[in-house]
Amino acid sequence: MKKVLIIHAHPERNSFCSRLKDEALDYFHWQNAEVKVSDLYAMNFNPVGGRHDFTEAENLDYFKYQAEQVHAWKTGTFDPMLKAEMEKLEWCDTLIFNFPIWWFGLPAMLKGWVDRVLAMGFSYGAGKGVYENGVFKDKTAFLCFTTGGPQTAYGNEGKNGNLDTILYPIHHGILYFVGMKVLPPFICFSPVRLTDEERKSELARYRTYLEECQSQTPLFGPAH
Amino acid sequence: MKKVLIIHAHPERNSFCSRLKDEALDYFHWQNAEVKVSDLYAMNFNPVGGRHDFTEAENLDYFKYQAEQVHAWKTGTFDPMLKAEMEKLEWCDTLIFNFPIWWFGLPAMLKGWVDRVLAMGFSYGAGKGVYENGVFKDKTAFLCFTTGGPQTAYGNEGKNGNLDTILYPIHHGILYFVGMKVLPPFICFSPVRLTDEERKSELARYRTYLEECQSQTPLFGPAH
Repeated sequence: MKKVLIIHAHPERNSFCSRLKDEALDYFHWQNAEVKVSDLYAMNFNPVGGRHDFTEAENLDYFKYQAEQVHAWKTGTFDPMLKAEMEKLEWCDTLIFNFPIWWFGLPAMLKGWVDRVLAMGFSYGAGKGVYENGVFKDKTAFLCFTTGGPQTAYGNEGKNGNLDTILYPIHHGILYFVGMKVLPPFICFSPVRLTDEERKSELARYRTYLEECQSQTPLFGPAH
Repeated sequence: MKKVLIIHAHPERNSFCSRLKDEALDYFHWQNAEVKVSDLYAMNFNPVGGRHDFTEAENLDYFKYQAEQVHAWKTGTFDPMLKAEMEKLEWCDTLIFNFPIWWFGLPAMLKGWVDRVLAMGFSYGAGKGVYENGVFKDKTAFLCFTTGGPQTAYGNEGKNGNLDTILYPIHHGILYFVGMKVLPPFICFSPVRLTDEERKSELARYRTYLEECQSQTPLFGPAH
C-alpha cells in the first residue's frame, strides 16, 4: 500500500494552497493509500535549528550543528518532535512539499523543517551517501505550490527568470541530495486572481497530475 | 558616510562564520563607516511569517499575508521588531547577509527575516516597482557565507551543481527583486577543514574582498 507524507506550510487553513493539500488527501484516501500530514503552522513547528534540536549535547562549549546531529543520531537524542518527523519520513514512499512559494523559495517554516529534520547522520553523512547513493532512493518526491505572480512572469521570457533554475536548490539540493526521485512540480499560478470556476478546474488538474505523476520522467534521481 | 547593515544568522557565536561578521565590523569601523548588525540568533528572531507580524488585522476571517502586509504598511501597524528591522534596512546603503549555507540556501532563520521584513508595501507592490524599478536601487548587497563541502563539490564539474544557479533565487529573486545592486559573493569553503593559518588567510582574503568589492561588476542590478 502506498504511503504518502505531505509537509504543508501555509498560515491560512482556508487558503487555496491548503485546499490543494486537502485534494491530495482525498485522492490518496480514495486510492486506499495511507497518508500522513505534517501541517507545520497547525503544529506550531519551530523552524530554527539549534541546541534545542537535541536532548543532550556532545560539546557544550562550541555548537557545531552537524556534529551534534550525528551525535544525536547515534545516541537517539533528537528532540521527540524531530524524531517523530524523521519516523514519518522513513515510513513514507512519497513525499510532497505543499506550500506557497515565498521569495522564490520555501517559506521559512518549511525550510526549517528541512534544516532540522534532514539531519546529518539521519539522511546523509556518517557513512551514508548522497545523490545517486542517497539513503532515500526508494522514495519519490514532488512540490505542489502556489505563486503570487502569473505564469507569464516566469520562464525564459519572464522577469522572474526560469522556474527550473529557481527550483534547482530545492529539487537538486534538497530532495535529490538525499537520493529521492524528483518529479516535475505541480504549480498553481496566482490562485488569488482565479474565479471559483477556474479554481475548480485547477483542483481537477491537480487530481489528474496525481493520477499521472508516477509515469512522468523524473527531473533528478533514479531512472533519470 | 557609508552605512552598513549586516544580517547575521549563525547559532554559534565563536564559529568562523561569526568571525567573518566580526572581520567586516572591524573593517568598516576602521573605514569610519557606520555599521549595524542584526544577529538573528542572539535576538531570538522568530522566522515564522504570520498574524503576529501585525498589531492589527485587516481581515480577521481569512489571512492573506501580502494583503495584511500592505495594510500594515499603510497604517503603521507592523510588529515593532519588524518595524525596527525595516528602519535599519532603509537606513543602510550596503546590506550583507552573513550565514552558513544550509541545504543550498539561507538557514530558515534568515529566510524568515526575508519573508517578514521585505514585506509587500514596504519593499515592493502597492505602487512600488521591482527589479530595475525596485525601491532599493541605491543600495548594494552581497552574501558572505561558509559551506560544509569543499570548493571542488561546486561548479559545473562538481556534484552539487553550479553556484551561480544555486544562488540565483537569493541573488536575483530576493536582493535584485527589491532593486539592489548585487555583488559577487564572498565564500569561505569548508572552514571546518582549515588550519588556523589557513583561517587567518581567509580573513585576510575577506578584508581584501571588502576593500575591492565596490569596484566589482555587479551580478544583477544598476550598472549590470
